[in-house]
Amino acid sequence: MTSYPHFGFEITHRAPTSRARIGRLKTPHGTIDTPNFIFCGTKATVKSVLTKDVKEAGTDIILANTYHLMLQPGADIVERMGGLHKFMNWDGPMLTDSGGYQIFSLGYGSVSEEVKGRSKRFDGKALLNISEEGAAFRSYIDGQKVYLTPEKVMEIQRKLGPDLVVQLDECTPFHAERDYTARAMAMSRRWGERCLTEFMSHNDGKQAVYGTVSGGVYEDLRIESAQSNAERDYFAVAIADCLGETKEHMYEVVAFTMPHVHPDRPVHLLGIGGIGDILTQVRQGIDTFDCVTPTRIARHGWALKKGAEKERINLRNAMYRENADPIDDDCECHTCQNYSTAYLHHMFKAKEFLGMQLVTIHNIHTMNRLMREVRAAILNDTLDTLHKEWCPDAKCG
Amino acid sequence: MTSYPHFGFEITHRAPTSRARIGRLKTPHGTIDTPNFIFCGTKATVKSVLTKDVKEAGTDIILANTYHLMLQPGADIVERMGGLHKFMNWDGPMLTDSGGYQIFSLGYGSVSEEVKGRSKRFDGKALLNISEEGAAFRSYIDGQKVYLTPEKVMEIQRKLGPDLVVQLDECTPFHAERDYTARAMAMSRRWGERCLTEFMSHNDGKQAVYGTVSGGVYEDLRIESAQSNAERDYFAVAIADCLGETKEHMYEVVAFTMPHVHPDRPVHLLGIGGIGDILTQVRQGIDTFDCVTPTRIARHGWALKKGAEKERINLRNAMYRENADPIDDDCECHTCQNYSTAYLHHMFKAKEFLGMQLVTIHNIHTMNRLMREVRAAILNDTLDTLHKEWCPDAKCG
Repeated sequence: MTSYPHFGFEITHRAPTSRARIGRLKTPHGTIDTPNFIFCGTKATVKSVLTKDVKEAGTDIILANTYHLMLQPGADIVERMGGLHKFMNWDGPMLTDSGGYQIFSLGYGSVSEEVKGRSKRFDGKALLNISEEGAAFRSYIDGQKVYLTPEKVMEIQRKLGPDLVVQLDECTPFHAERDYTARAMAMSRRWGERCLTEFMSHNDGKQAVYGTVSGGVYEDLRIESAQSNAERDYFAVAIADCLGETKEHMYEVVAFTMPHVHPDRPVHLLGIGGIGDILTQVRQGIDTFDCVTPTRIARHGWALKKGAEKERINLRNAMYRENADPIDDDCECHTCQNYSTAYLHHMFKAKEFLGMQLVTIHNIHTMNRLMREVRAAILNDTLDTLHKEWCPDAKCG
Repeated sequence: MTSYPHFGFEITHRAPTSRARIGRLKTPHGTIDTPNFIFCGTKATVKSVLTKDVKEAGTDIILANTYHLMLQPGADIVERMGGLHKFMNWDGPMLTDSGGYQIFSLGYGSVSEEVKGRSKRFDGKALLNISEEGAAFRSYIDGQKVYLTPEKVMEIQRKLGPDLVVQLDECTPFHAERDYTARAMAMSRRWGERCLTEFMSHNDGKQAVYGTVSGGVYEDLRIESAQSNAERDYFAVAIADCLGETKEHMYEVVAFTMPHVHPDRPVHLLGIGGIGDILTQVRQGIDTFDCVTPTRIARHGWALKKGAEKERINLRNAMYRENADPIDDDCECHTCQNYSTAYLHHMFKAKEFLGMQLVTIHNIHTMNRLMREVRAAILNDTLDTLHKEWCPDAKCG
């Protein structure tokens, strides 16, 4: 892969009983073990936690969102401030997404809290137009019309300066028909080619591109997309687009897609990061995951816990009012080593920010612990046992 | 002071040209240099900062508010969780106030954000009754009637378990007449005696009591209060009650009071903590200060800065949009060492919690730096020079 001289991906172990694998993903800002979890630093901050604490909680890699940052503070300012690593004080590997997911969510009325942020100036559809050339939408910050093309998305990500960037693709909604999805997939393929051309014309070795595999829930489209993706000079693969309405559907889509992606490239599964999902999907060969859930639920008082029902506990529950124990006796995070659940309960009841911070630290640490245990279990071929330990009440994937 | 075997106050230096002094205040959780600043950890948290970062920012001592904690989570829970030190993960010296300030503010309609918190269930007066026996008020949490007596206040502080506790006194409003203030001062003296009796009947050496000096803005009352305070077996002195409507008035009240307080006991000035105020009041012999301002303004984007106009800068100002410099080139805090003002500006514009955290860390560090420089300047008799460096546009006190 001479297009990416400062990047690499070495698969050091393959599980005998599944597609699961152990790897080393090399970037200019460090090498990470895979499978691994990428924490969301949406607006250039992993919400409510200092980067030193993100690191202390065992984090190897984070991401930031192109969509949010292009609108505020703007890619030019981030570039002039020395790029995202310096701007947000993170010296490890970093990825930005293409912004496509957020832009297209705006158009489908499935706008999430994450996309809208706290400003609710605009009702209705913010996605104005999609064409072969690109997509127009309204900024949620100031209502300005913004026009994005594949070339522009690569330019923005070049200015933001993360190690890993992602091509622009069209994300189709749950209810998209096969024909619509087929056309979107084909356009995403062409957009990807334009992204690669733009990227290569400025390639200075500091970044590497993920090509996306789309095709919604349709097996033949997914296979076609995976194959065309593998033929192009992407560094890595991102499984994108609609993965179905249920977890079972998502597992199925990933299962029929993965045998067709490039076998030697790192594979990222966009936006998925439940504990059970991860334990299931590493068996399909997924190398990295990202999801806002671990940090978002922390801000609402939910702590991830190995073996807990639904993978988490609710610290607002009155049962923690006088509980001197930490969230998890076996957890070595700063929060569990120093604070009781009674204190965390009090923080949430008193609406104190510190509760959010302490539980975010715990949830980050827990995800990183999960990934360490996942890597060990792949090596030892004990993923089934590990799955039962983390999710005793779930069907084992 | 045999009533306080594990506490001490040693004055190691007295300035030749003012009442300023350097001291060592010993508590069971450590000894601090004075003059010093006590940071507010109102509801058992210095808002938005982990205690490890509070400590890393050079903090020697913090306080928590009896009023807030007795209502939520309640003194009994804090006691059963091992006391405030363990509950909130702070192993250094700690003080709690008596709760009187908040209770009496409720009665005067001057209820601050701090007192009300974010719950606005009750309009109008929450202070129901004051008598010789004690004071009744309504909880801002659940509307329950709460009755506080001097004995009860000491019991609550004993359960909370800080090193330093404060007697209950009546705080008079700005507009109180001399007669009202005289009666309040006399009652506060009797309340103080009841507090001492209650304290001594349970004294296990783990806590020490501050007696308050009241008397509002009336010189003869302040002197009488200071003298009666000095005659009782308090460990230390807290200058309490109304200090006037302006800074000048406050300076005058402290100036005519301080020559009459016990000369060998540590003196705390309740609720005062502007940079200029501190530089002025150490000259009167004040040993410790507390104020919510450094941490509160941080959460609104104001950073304290040596030499800045009005002691602070506003990070929301557009002038910081592309400013790659830290808040203060000379500051060694984690924030200034790692983040630009452009990043902090972005955090506040994007309503990200991390902005509050980073500026709180800076403001705490800056107050601790101020106090270190104050102590050095007292030793070197250079307080005037230091005052001009920190507050170049202020009249030197």
